[in-house]
Amino acid sequence: MYIDIKPLWTTIKNNIIEKISTLNKTITLAAVTLKPDDATQNYLKNQEKLAKKLGINYSVYEAINRNQLFSILRELSSDNNVHGIFVTHPLPGIEEMEAVNMISPEKDVEGRHPYNMGMLMYGSEFFAPCTAEAVVKILEDITKLSGANVVVVGRSTTVGKPLAIMLLRRDRSATVTVCHTRTRNLQQITRNADIVIAAAGKINLITSDMVKENSIVVDVGINVTDNGIVGDVNPEVSEKALVTPVPGGVGRITTIILMEHVVKAAEKLKLT
Amino acid sequence: MYIDIKPLWTTIKNNIIEKISTLNKTITLAAVTLKPDDATQNYLKNQEKLAKKLGINYSVYEAINRNQLFSILRELSSDNNVHGIFVTHPLPGIEEMEAVNMISPEKDVEGRHPYNMGMLMYGSEFFAPCTAEAVVKILEDITKLSGANVVVVGRSTTVGKPLAIMLLRRDRSATVTVCHTRTRNLQQITRNADIVIAAAGKINLITSDMVKENSIVVDVGINVTDNGIVGDVNPEVSEKALVTPVPGGVGRITTIILMEHVVKAAEKLKLT
Repeated sequence: MYIDIKPLWTTIKNNIIEKISTLNKTITLAAVTLKPDDATQNYLKNQEKLAKKLGINYSVYEAINRNQLFSILRELSSDNNVHGIFVTHPLPGIEEMEAVNMISPEKDVEGRHPYNMGMLMYGSEFFAPCTAEAVVKILEDITKLSGANVVVVGRSTTVGKPLAIMLLRRDRSATVTVCHTRTRNLQQITRNADIVIAAAGKINLITSDMVKENSIVVDVGINVTDNGIVGDVNPEVSEKALVTPVPGGVGRITTIILMEHVVKAAEKLKLT
Repeated sequence: MYIDIKPLWTTIKNNIIEKISTLNKTITLAAVTLKPDDATQNYLKNQEKLAKKLGINYSVYEAINRNQLFSILRELSSDNNVHGIFVTHPLPGIEEMEAVNMISPEKDVEGRHPYNMGMLMYGSEFFAPCTAEAVVKILEDITKLSGANVVVVGRSTTVGKPLAIMLLRRDRSATVTVCHTRTRNLQQITRNADIVIAAAGKINLITSDMVKENSIVVDVGINVTDNGIVGDVNPEVSEKALVTPVPGGVGRITTIILMEHVVKAAEKLKLT
């Protein structure tokens, strides 16, 4: 069976709209990009549409080279009218961390700045990486994490690793295993899991024989094929387990969480 | 059987002495404490002894209250004659993170500042938490980590969590499971492990029936008893697996790694 993401999405959306009305000021998200390809431009258009729907002011800054990108990020970081900064990725020829390091941690609404990542290790993050947070919110909405055997397949800096750390936090207390390309007996490990998170970016990574009956499978994969976007989880898994759909699953929650973070940043700026 | 830590310790020590002779300047480690108890004072004395043996200048700053502690940390952070800052822990009445946030990340030789922790998530850390690094160095010295099933028991911010992240790094590529008090079937999980890391601070946490024949068990525990310091691993485990001793195991490597970090900090200060 597929998990219906819509109710959670609506809850978060309503929460955002309520907070914005309370704040009673213009909230601005700045998106920064460098030589965007078609997919990136498309992503930015959808992001703009969502921002405007929620009443968040939205601007795109397109840099033509590395130096300009960095100076835009620095300027936006010190601009009091900007509350959140989003950077498209991957950035051609630039290491993700270099760009992220130019953003003020207080406006790092994607939760990718090393300082925010470190605060996550302390369980005291102001912003968590949006995709990892989306997975946690989806799980908390439908199951009890304490003591659950969770297997995360994928060890990326923005999903697999922070997600593992977040699931270990005392108020969640899952037992967490992180697997990847070098893992032996992946099938044996995932078959024992109460929850499998597929976050490796590989089509058909998780097949029906790899999951336990009635387990939960969260599909973080976004793979472009001739037949559209597909996840990391084979559709047949949905006959055996509860699965989040792709598209319209984790990705959908991730984009609304980013907006939630922009509002959070604006609230904090109001307080200080 | 017990693992002999001495050769690794000697290698690191010789490496430090060689680097100090190349640097040809006074290298200073500042230790900061607040109302130290007997155990803390003892720890500082041993640290001083080791520093002096290596030719590292060593001073202790004893604060009498919170404000003074924070101002000492800020002053030392901007003092060009100080290369590394060590803070004793736990600090009575002060959250670890508050104190660590007062230290310049460049002098955070314990690798506990959120910025350094976040860089660890990116696999680009300048300083890793010393105990976690000690465990990694011990393992890299005696085994191949790629594809190994490693179980970490304990999810602390300075050992369990950063250690899991470090073991996942591509040049190591272990499959990592983090267990804790809420874990169900701990025995079943550890029995499947090639390597077990006991880092929960609980006497007899790991017993013989919990480990696989010929596996490796790293004991991070430091538990004070009437019969002296004991680890988290029951001595009988050493009949079945390769075990690091306590005392004289991980703790011994941890203290020398801290000194290695001080030298690394001094080298960087020279370059910039």
